[in-house]
Amino acid sequence: MRIGFLQLRPRFGAVKENVRKAAALLDKMSDAIIVLPELFNTGYLFRNGSELAELAERVPDGYTTVEMQKLAKRRKLTLVFGLAQKHKGAVYNSAVCVTASGKVEAYQKAHLFDREKLFFARGKTLKVVPAGGAKLGLMICFDWIFPEAARSLALQGAQILCHPANLVLPYGQEAMRTRCIENRVFAVTANRIGSERRGTICLTFTGGSQIVSPTGEVLASASDRSESLRVIDVDIGVANDKNVSPNNDIFADRSPSLYGALVRKRR
Amino acid sequence: MRIGFLQLRPRFGAVKENVRKAAALLDKMSDAIIVLPELFNTGYLFRNGSELAELAERVPDGYTTVEMQKLAKRRKLTLVFGLAQKHKGAVYNSAVCVTASGKVEAYQKAHLFDREKLFFARGKTLKVVPAGGAKLGLMICFDWIFPEAARSLALQGAQILCHPANLVLPYGQEAMRTRCIENRVFAVTANRIGSERRGTICLTFTGGSQIVSPTGEVLASASDRSESLRVIDVDIGVANDKNVSPNNDIFADRSPSLYGALVRKRR
Repeated sequence: MRIGFLQLRPRFGAVKENVRKAAALLDKMSDAIIVLPELFNTGYLFRNGSELAELAERVPDGYTTVEMQKLAKRRKLTLVFGLAQKHKGAVYNSAVCVTASGKVEAYQKAHLFDREKLFFARGKTLKVVPAGGAKLGLMICFDWIFPEAARSLALQGAQILCHPANLVLPYGQEAMRTRCIENRVFAVTANRIGSERRGTICLTFTGGSQIVSPTGEVLASASDRSESLRVIDVDIGVANDKNVSPNNDIFADRSPSLYGALVRKRR
Repeated sequence: MRIGFLQLRPRFGAVKENVRKAAALLDKMSDAIIVLPELFNTGYLFRNGSELAELAERVPDGYTTVEMQKLAKRRKLTLVFGLAQKHKGAVYNSAVCVTASGKVEAYQKAHLFDREKLFFARGKTLKVVPAGGAKLGLMICFDWIFPEAARSLALQGAQILCHPANLVLPYGQEAMRTRCIENRVFAVTANRIGSERRGTICLTFTGGSQIVSPTGEVLASASDRSESLRVIDVDIGVANDKNVSPNNDIFADRSPSLYGALVRKRR
């Protein structure tokens, strides 16, 4: 099975240009599961809710999803990409998965970062999507800091954590290696590069997109400076083996009766 | 507040020698919280259950706990150390905490590694101990691979993960940095060094004991070759601040209603 990432430098607000560039780069690929960055079609630093609403799109009938769906069918790809999703009067920071067979699924980000809280609604469901011959656990960027997100997806059968990102904190890539080790799954983090400045706010995105194995090995990675498409072959079955020693299946070894604090409501 | 580790190379079965050596090294210290390795008094590679039972001790009245208790009082120390604990007809792989004021608490390891399952009973409670002016979350070695352990302790108020270890896998130290970042707590991993051989089994312990800050910074660390005592000053209050951005308190941002899979019983 072939899995990979497309690391990009989107231009803020230039949706058609960003989608066309991604599509052109991907049009050389086929038969693979490929992850793109969070909000790859719009850029990240929205000035306010109305600017966001103008750039948000419906799923599955918005421009970006339609174009990516065409590409997925034409090239036999499974694509996971981030966009701002208009849904029932709100806007979500979503990861959309489209497949060659026409499936479209969206995960709405459950853990919003910083100013995202001002504009985006918070997702209320985690999502595992069977696609391209694997079970994909959808995560977006800041979800990485909550071990419960990756763990829940893995317990629900995810074999690959598909992780569109716009990482600005320095820890995400290392933490995703731990997510792989503790869950014995693959992870594909597709980060973006470049900077965005709006008013007094300036963000620099850290690149370093990576594909990590269930033992925490970095199988492929990108720099923090250039757009980059990497696809590699993996044996997806490795993610079904949760044994870390002759006597330890780390899923069977969990002690759910001790973990009550994790699901208690906060005061 | 001063926190630290004592990395040791125990000699298998030589309980008095191991305890005396540790006590001699610690007798220069005072007013600190210091973590020692898992099973620091016995060594690790028990041949069978009866050999383990011979080396196991009661808490608080066994030899090792009594000696460490005396040391804690004399030097105003809080000590966290691993031993094989005889308790109600079973033997546990335990972390004992003794304080200058005479408190003694034991945490019985909840996630047993490999052959430990053949001899040790599994602990049924996680434990946060107020001691030495901080709240100590007790973890032992392989507990590191279960994010639920550190998370549960942090949610119950732990400011320092005290982590006696006999690490043999290569991932534990990096994962503990992630445990700190995702929970915004300190961690002190006290690992051992050296090798043990019994019959066909040979284990080499990886050393690399470390003190990590709530932002994942390694504040002090040891090599994989020598016994080492390191104590540093930290501002424990940093562990109470769960903010990673102006809008993100990562504990308040958790979505417990999404994490049901984590407490579901396995089939």
